[in-house]
Amino acid sequence: MVEVDFEPIGRRVVVPAESTLLEAARQAGVSLSADCGGNGTCGRCRVRLMSGELTQPTGAEVRRLGKLLDTGWRFACQAKALSDVKVNVPLESMRGAQRLQLGGLQPDVAIEPILVGVPVALTPPTLDDGRSDMTRLIHALQGATLGGDPYYDIAVGREAPVALRQDHWEGTAWLRESEVCAVLEPGRAPLGLAVDLGTTKIAAYLVDLSTGATLASAGAMNPQIAYGEDLMSRIAYANQGEWKAAELSQVVVEAFNKLLAELCAQVRRSPREVLEVVVGANTAMHHLLLRLPVEQLGSAPYIAAVSESWDVKARELGLSTAPGAYLHTLPNIAGFVGADHVAMILATEVYKAKGNVMALDIGTNTEIVLAHGGKMVSCSCASGPAFEGAHIRDGMRATTGAIERVVLAKNGRLKIAVIDDAPAVGICGSGILDAVAVLYRAGALNNRGRFEPGSPLVERDSQGYLVTLAPGEQSGHGRPVVITQRDVGEIQLAKGAIRAGVECLLRYAGLAHEDLDEIIIAGAFGTYVDVESAMAIGMLPGLPSSRFRQVGNAAGVGAKLALISRSERSMAREIGRRVEYMELMSQPGFTEIFAESMLFPDLNASAAVG
Amino acid sequence: MVEVDFEPIGRRVVVPAESTLLEAARQAGVSLSADCGGNGTCGRCRVRLMSGELTQPTGAEVRRLGKLLDTGWRFACQAKALSDVKVNVPLESMRGAQRLQLGGLQPDVAIEPILVGVPVALTPPTLDDGRSDMTRLIHALQGATLGGDPYYDIAVGREAPVALRQDHWEGTAWLRESEVCAVLEPGRAPLGLAVDLGTTKIAAYLVDLSTGATLASAGAMNPQIAYGEDLMSRIAYANQGEWKAAELSQVVVEAFNKLLAELCAQVRRSPREVLEVVVGANTAMHHLLLRLPVEQLGSAPYIAAVSESWDVKARELGLSTAPGAYLHTLPNIAGFVGADHVAMILATEVYKAKGNVMALDIGTNTEIVLAHGGKMVSCSCASGPAFEGAHIRDGMRATTGAIERVVLAKNGRLKIAVIDDAPAVGICGSGILDAVAVLYRAGALNNRGRFEPGSPLVERDSQGYLVTLAPGEQSGHGRPVVITQRDVGEIQLAKGAIRAGVECLLRYAGLAHEDLDEIIIAGAFGTYVDVESAMAIGMLPGLPSSRFRQVGNAAGVGAKLALISRSERSMAREIGRRVEYMELMSQPGFTEIFAESMLFPDLNASAAVG
Repeated sequence: MVEVDFEPIGRRVVVPAESTLLEAARQAGVSLSADCGGNGTCGRCRVRLMSGELTQPTGAEVRRLGKLLDTGWRFACQAKALSDVKVNVPLESMRGAQRLQLGGLQPDVAIEPILVGVPVALTPPTLDDGRSDMTRLIHALQGATLGGDPYYDIAVGREAPVALRQDHWEGTAWLRESEVCAVLEPGRAPLGLAVDLGTTKIAAYLVDLSTGATLASAGAMNPQIAYGEDLMSRIAYANQGEWKAAELSQVVVEAFNKLLAELCAQVRRSPREVLEVVVGANTAMHHLLLRLPVEQLGSAPYIAAVSESWDVKARELGLSTAPGAYLHTLPNIAGFVGADHVAMILATEVYKAKGNVMALDIGTNTEIVLAHGGKMVSCSCASGPAFEGAHIRDGMRATTGAIERVVLAKNGRLKIAVIDDAPAVGICGSGILDAVAVLYRAGALNNRGRFEPGSPLVERDSQGYLVTLAPGEQSGHGRPVVITQRDVGEIQLAKGAIRAGVECLLRYAGLAHEDLDEIIIAGAFGTYVDVESAMAIGMLPGLPSSRFRQVGNAAGVGAKLALISRSERSMAREIGRRVEYMELMSQPGFTEIFAESMLFPDLNASAAVG
Repeated sequence: MVEVDFEPIGRRVVVPAESTLLEAARQAGVSLSADCGGNGTCGRCRVRLMSGELTQPTGAEVRRLGKLLDTGWRFACQAKALSDVKVNVPLESMRGAQRLQLGGLQPDVAIEPILVGVPVALTPPTLDDGRSDMTRLIHALQGATLGGDPYYDIAVGREAPVALRQDHWEGTAWLRESEVCAVLEPGRAPLGLAVDLGTTKIAAYLVDLSTGATLASAGAMNPQIAYGEDLMSRIAYANQGEWKAAELSQVVVEAFNKLLAELCAQVRRSPREVLEVVVGANTAMHHLLLRLPVEQLGSAPYIAAVSESWDVKARELGLSTAPGAYLHTLPNIAGFVGADHVAMILATEVYKAKGNVMALDIGTNTEIVLAHGGKMVSCSCASGPAFEGAHIRDGMRATTGAIERVVLAKNGRLKIAVIDDAPAVGICGSGILDAVAVLYRAGALNNRGRFEPGSPLVERDSQGYLVTLAPGEQSGHGRPVVITQRDVGEIQLAKGAIRAGVECLLRYAGLAHEDLDEIIIAGAFGTYVDVESAMAIGMLPGLPSSRFRQVGNAAGVGAKLALISRSERSMAREIGRRVEYMELMSQPGFTEIFAESMLFPDLNASAAVG
């Protein structure tokens, strides 16, 4: 066994000799970036050896790190500890403390609780009245259920007899249709948990099921990131065997339990009082959580194993809720249009739209729905992780030190805003989108996304043209934060994919840009994105700003609505069935539309409409 | 000298300190396997230390047992007793397996399967038909269910997508009401398992659910015996904490899984094809299996936590059946009248009785039902473990070497029959009952159960009067097998408890002995007991032999009926509700009735009726 010491955070862990530093980091709870899932290709897990002995650099390290190897830089996923070692983890290699979008606009809905409480006061058993505890309870509940005869599952049979005795045969039976899910002490209101389970982030909301009030909310990174940032890497990991799939499920369940404990502690309640959990997730996350087969999600025609709304016992997954609690999953629409999209449609009330309304949830996959003439059609665009900072030379997530805003100052120089006003160490999605828009407007980029060498903003180094956003002497790590030609290309791919989806949906419905009455932008990135910048680079069609609405974490809000209202839950089920799925790849002319969408729009045209 | 107690067979022997357990077993007449002759090489004589101190493990034990040593496993030929010890002898370490009653008279019932198979042939998914696997399946099942819309649980969602792909989208969906419990490959008939879970023994039957045919049956000792022979000890053990209760459940589940594997291997099928399990058990065993609270079962008014029929997922208990399989428990009537009693009533069709019928299942607790005028009333008698050989000086279970029959030869001497025609090493329940009857008839016992010193059969040793059944020179261990005054007293207590129950039920219903049209005797002991002997000592009322019927393991048969027929299952539920429970202790005059029942009846009176 050897000890690995991660500095400057000061975490130590003892692992078997020849463990990779990434494995050690996972053990130590150090959230190293590992976009590629640990195969040495993404280069995000750079660390610097301070003392001790590691294995010789691998081919991947020699190719990617070159001379940096001489100064101790290594990839954590490749280097194995041969002795006790101390390594330095630079901020940009950390995933931690990312800004999480928890809030969202919540429509007014009537509270129609999923669970109904029936107070009971039972006569204690005697030699002459020897009815069993549960028969006694069920007799008291006759006629109280919404459906047929009341029944109860094994967890309630195990717990209620003890609870009823403790509480002198009084309590409240909480029924979900005809099923007794828990018997709580008199006067206790049951809790519910709504979860927006994203590929990168998890947002959780603790709700009073009787009043519908949100008692507390919290967010966390999805720990599956350590197994690959994109869904395909995780699907590949799960396909390696049942234990690997179980592992992926388990780490998410552990994150749920941690959030649950944290939220309950905030309001001095117990997770055991949580009687219902609603999860909105994309299809792959939904399947990985429930340990459903995912192999068929990984290749055409990308079929979900389960799509309809579903109730499973939360304990089957290992959740530390009340043992009788259910976990309700919102429906998936297709392999890449999941329950999070349904939750977004529910929360934004797109399904009620009279006119033509489009709603986008921008992420690694961007799902877009178009409501028109009482119909809804959705598609999924492979927009990639560029907006999360991946595949961008100085890209990083929206956390301390990330450039989040870029504007052109009157002096013709670039002006930046950094999260937490820290020295810049990289650039996050909204920042790079701003930067590209500003550079295009300033003439530093042409409409094909090439740097104009004549622009005073454009420099050149050994690898090609670039623009410096923060010089080394102002940055947090002594190196400049820049945008390269390749970075611009990545943004063009990402924004082109989204715009192509928008165009295909409009074409499918026979609509022009101007026919769109409203464009709703949901999701964390969508909260921070500057709509003018997005229009300037042609990610979104040029329309009056008043037609845009940024709604925050709509998926989380949708999950909450399905938690507190049975009508909203039914509506979610209906949305899952009603939404038509449009497969982009099989749309005629898709390739041409995509190619054109990667270009930047005519500045005057864009300005004219805006 | 130290005492070695061999469980679960219940043999004790006093041997010099540092005797090997194998030597002690030979002394005690316990037939341990020892193929190698006791030199530690065959590993057949494995036993498990429950209490007391043994010598350190020998090299042979360390090599062969490894980690098992930590959990108390030893080789009987190597381990020497340093103090009084109690060891558990697993069935596989015994040479002559204990006689288990598996068969029973089964009434003719129509097969009405609990699960209905619906063959499906699905169209494979395409880019244009992207329905999820389970939606595709459910669409194919519309209209096929007996109840509402078909649904499926998490286990089926996990397995069916893989199974359907493997079988080219063909298979048979097995529905239980509206729930899809499994998708099997085309043409596979599902299996079911019926289990009679007794305090001492477990009998299991593998059934073809389509035809109702019993494919194989097997029995095993209840491994909970290691935690106490009687239910009260086990309840006390479970009350020590959740882990203890879990342990008691787990050992039984392991025994189930072992039986299941054994039965399936016999017919070359897999436990994963078992889609339904039915268990009949007494109330305490039912609760311990399902891990329901038992504390309230241990003291008045002895209330069950759960009494109604119940369906729980077999996987919740850890059974290795199909993951979607249910375990159905038959209903309990009261704290000491359990589902095994209901199964017995079902199998013997007592519930159909036109006249006055009494049925008894004799065991440590003896449950008796009296059907009269369309009503049924049951009681439970604490008959104790004497008929299982416990608390009897030379008592043992019905296994090789046990005296099972005793008659008076014409020469006035006692004549014995021994199981497997082996040299006698002890006496089992039917043998001691015979012996007491014979001794009473021969005038060696008076009607109060005292030995008559004048009888030529009665001897005297330092501890008091006794009768020798097998002299030392003919026995298997060189010591005589005897019946002592105390043994007779134990039998009087046991038979008195049963007779008191019979009398109280008759009195409650206002019936005389002669009004009984039929007396049914069920259970293992009931199979082997000599009815004439039982009448002679007054355990049963004196009636013509033609009114008695011995039916074997009726509880097992009842569980099987509830497995293969939905009508029988409904009837079991109804029996659970219809049977009135009579608490013996609260019957007026019970103590007097019990006291009188312990006496032996007037020989002439008994003969006159017989």
